[in-house]
Amino acid sequence: MKIQLALDRLSKEECFRLIEETEEYIDWIEIGTGVIKEYGMSIIREVKQRYPDTTLVADMKTCDAGAAEAAQAFEAGADISTVMAFSADNTISDTLSIAGKYGKRMMIDLLGVEDPDRVRRIEQLGADLVSLHYGKDMQHQGAMNVNLFDLLSVNSALEVAVAGGINADSLPALLHKSPSIVIVGSAITKAPDSKRAAEELKGVIESDENHH
Amino acid sequence: MKIQLALDRLSKEECFRLIEETEEYIDWIEIGTGVIKEYGMSIIREVKQRYPDTTLVADMKTCDAGAAEAAQAFEAGADISTVMAFSADNTISDTLSIAGKYGKRMMIDLLGVEDPDRVRRIEQLGADLVSLHYGKDMQHQGAMNVNLFDLLSVNSALEVAVAGGINADSLPALLHKSPSIVIVGSAITKAPDSKRAAEELKGVIESDENHH
Repeated sequence: MKIQLALDRLSKEECFRLIEETEEYIDWIEIGTGVIKEYGMSIIREVKQRYPDTTLVADMKTCDAGAAEAAQAFEAGADISTVMAFSADNTISDTLSIAGKYGKRMMIDLLGVEDPDRVRRIEQLGADLVSLHYGKDMQHQGAMNVNLFDLLSVNSALEVAVAGGINADSLPALLHKSPSIVIVGSAITKAPDSKRAAEELKGVIESDENHH
Repeated sequence: MKIQLALDRLSKEECFRLIEETEEYIDWIEIGTGVIKEYGMSIIREVKQRYPDTTLVADMKTCDAGAAEAAQAFEAGADISTVMAFSADNTISDTLSIAGKYGKRMMIDLLGVEDPDRVRRIEQLGADLVSLHYGKDMQHQGAMNVNLFDLLSVNSALEVAVAGGINADSLPALLHKSPSIVIVGSAITKAPDSKRAAEELKGVIESDENHH
């Protein structure tokens, strides 16, 4: 199980400091939507240049113009770009087709999706990676619920990431659902000691893996 | 009726050239999502600096973290920022509340919305401006249909913008629906003579206004 470090609502300097502090415990680096909208593709290029061997996720949250936005992210150096599940089928298939051309991947963000049929449709469109996403603005109403996993069919072959205010307290319940990627933001980025927070989360995952 | 010039999938230099060429015929300037993702907030700041008196729309297409993204756009100089209608109610109300604090406005992008109840709900949340949006990736399947206007209630007080591959041919049918803002992208930006294309569209609108 991988940890994806989500860097959002941070300055460029803070992003680089956090990657440096935590890199031995994290697997994938995500540049968040707000950071992309602040700095543009230059931050994707800079992160890829400094960390060429780490998988880099550009959280583009594409809603339309799928081919153009996916190409934009991959050209800048992203290994994975995100597209919203509620966008048009054409948008999703266009991004998947561009990802194929570049030898890269799309992560389909299930934010706001409540109907398992939509997830099945997304798999039919050729997606192989989704994120179960409990939005930042929904977190006002309480923590994420593992029921989010009910969106997935029993026989789904989708690789699954999970995101939404995950911390050391909420992580154990999620581990029972065996996601492939756990996306963590503020539990690391806002911790008094980010390195230690990343180490602790990695420890929870490794201990779980050793017991199953 | 206003013309909003949508600048997307263009370099910064092309954006500035197009604004300069067309400014006497256009009312609002929109910096498109792809351009924002390429250059970040710097392009919003530069456009506002050069054109401080023109209404500047940042097509942020916010899906989550509404308060942070709206503040980001307004701080950079946007007069209007966009948020997706399919995002969580909290996301939409957070952006409206930030817009109120800054004395700015949100445009709620109805891309992908098919249920008039969602539009009513958005109006209840306090929105006063929406865009009826036939997505770029849906345009593969043919031109926008005026049925999009059926999403609006008869007694809605919403100010309405309309977007989606609008050109001199499709504009007259839309004018019967009396939108407040017509959003035009490639019909101007990809025209052999952009100034003339903008002038022509402005002429169609003025001639319609003089006959009603």
